[in-house]
Amino acid sequence: MREGDLHALIAAANARLPKGVMIPPGDDMAQVAIAGGSVLIACDQVIEGRHFVPNTPIELIARKAIARNVSDVAAMAGRPLACLCAATLPSDLPESAVRALTAALQRHAEDFGCPLVGGDTSWHGEPGHPLQLSITILALPHASGRVVRRDQAKDGDAVMVSGALGGSFGADGLGRHLRFEPRVRLARELVDRFGDELGAMIDVSDGLGRDLDRMACASGVAIHIEGDRIPLHEGCSIDQALRDGEDHELAFTLRADAAKGLPATMAGVPLSVIGGVRAASDVHPAGARVFLAGAWHAMGSMGWEHGPSVGA
Amino acid sequence: MREGDLHALIAAANARLPKGVMIPPGDDMAQVAIAGGSVLIACDQVIEGRHFVPNTPIELIARKAIARNVSDVAAMAGRPLACLCAATLPSDLPESAVRALTAALQRHAEDFGCPLVGGDTSWHGEPGHPLQLSITILALPHASGRVVRRDQAKDGDAVMVSGALGGSFGADGLGRHLRFEPRVRLARELVDRFGDELGAMIDVSDGLGRDLDRMACASGVAIHIEGDRIPLHEGCSIDQALRDGEDHELAFTLRADAAKGLPATMAGVPLSVIGGVRAASDVHPAGARVFLAGAWHAMGSMGWEHGPSVGA
Repeated sequence: MREGDLHALIAAANARLPKGVMIPPGDDMAQVAIAGGSVLIACDQVIEGRHFVPNTPIELIARKAIARNVSDVAAMAGRPLACLCAATLPSDLPESAVRALTAALQRHAEDFGCPLVGGDTSWHGEPGHPLQLSITILALPHASGRVVRRDQAKDGDAVMVSGALGGSFGADGLGRHLRFEPRVRLARELVDRFGDELGAMIDVSDGLGRDLDRMACASGVAIHIEGDRIPLHEGCSIDQALRDGEDHELAFTLRADAAKGLPATMAGVPLSVIGGVRAASDVHPAGARVFLAGAWHAMGSMGWEHGPSVGA
Repeated sequence: MREGDLHALIAAANARLPKGVMIPPGDDMAQVAIAGGSVLIACDQVIEGRHFVPNTPIELIARKAIARNVSDVAAMAGRPLACLCAATLPSDLPESAVRALTAALQRHAEDFGCPLVGGDTSWHGEPGHPLQLSITILALPHASGRVVRRDQAKDGDAVMVSGALGGSFGADGLGRHLRFEPRVRLARELVDRFGDELGAMIDVSDGLGRDLDRMACASGVAIHIEGDRIPLHEGCSIDQALRDGEDHELAFTLRADAAKGLPATMAGVPLSVIGGVRAASDVHPAGARVFLAGAWHAMGSMGWEHGPSVGA
């Protein structure tokens, strides 16, 4: 059983939507109805040795913990409201580090517009257990009320991605994954400009391959990507862009007519058209595929299984 | 540095309240303003070896993880709305256990009125690291809008506690801390009946000693408890009631006149008057003290330091 599967089980069991739950588990955030509106909520954790290397500066650990949650808010085109932190600390973490961590969490939370309003702290019983931060973020929908989901890609949409991908973790573990800018402003401007012409959107956190496949499966469509259109960070291969993850860019779809009016950059971020959406069928089952080196490859596992031979 | 101190640091640094934050860190839950109202939010974790013994049934681990968060909602007299779970699982946890855990979390969350709407799952990199669940709970204030805080105890209030205290963990670690009933209904009925005559309220999670001291310090008052009035679980000593924790009963204050009308039970839960509140002064500094065996004892540390000799 792999990361995400518990989440998948929760999503599956929530097929019957509890009262008040407008978007259940399975998207970047859940949406819960409250009198006169709704809130968005999600949680995400960072664990030493998995999401950051052991000697990462406390300052950057705190930034990443908050920023990756803010990126989930961006994926829904939401507005960050507040956050909480449940921390589990190594038993031998010096008090100065605890103070630095607290200050950094507060500063970054406030900078990202979601002040730290609560939390819980535990210490591991034994030394050597990893530092762990679980952040919950609360957000409001875009002012128009539109919440952009991952399951709204439709036949004929164009598929776009912001920024450039690949190599985020870096050879020393101290790469862009610690310093990325969540695309909150871009997401807001996309809704401002395109409204309902904006289809599905997702935060590229686990690699373009897995994340576009999630979008395709959630939407019940086939997403076809042209490999040589994927925007790459300098020195990165297409393979890295598809697999590395931790980019925290946005992948989204636009109805075909709207896509023709897409500017080259929005909110200061370059945008690239990388493929299209078509209805799922026996020939093109739901899922994402990429055309690379003369063949189509299933993107979900990016284990380079050869997918069906289809045209984009 | 002890458990709760990171929380204290966050609270201290939030003296300047960020926009929209109505109750900052430091209470059982934070309150955040949204258009037309507010939401309450808190998070709390359970860690194997600390909050439950290693062989605790999965079913009861899940129940405790949810119930202790629901108890925080009760402390604010709130209405549970939704919850999220960030889980970190031992690398060798069998898939059947993951499924059982997911099902139990969902069932208990729904039973307590706060459906599980999201989460995040990670696996520990090495076997032997503890199972850990961090639950965030979202709630609405009481229908009247009243949110009961811990910092509103006033000179002249009577101090009450629900149920009975002590021995929750049990000799085998499988005691009441796994099965307690969060006092959501009691809290609601207290606000229904007493409105603004209800002063401060807190969830007794870390022992009556520490928790009443927190209420006293947050309110800037002296709380004086008569030791022999503390309701004890069968077989428990007053010392256990003061120190054991994990009772998840409610301690609260009522203005003196209202206290005269307190029934012996509400919502099926026995209520006991155990002491009173007086203004803090040089003679009675802010804090909670208990009269036991002919002397007054400071309750905050319950290290049995002798507090100032004062009258209740």
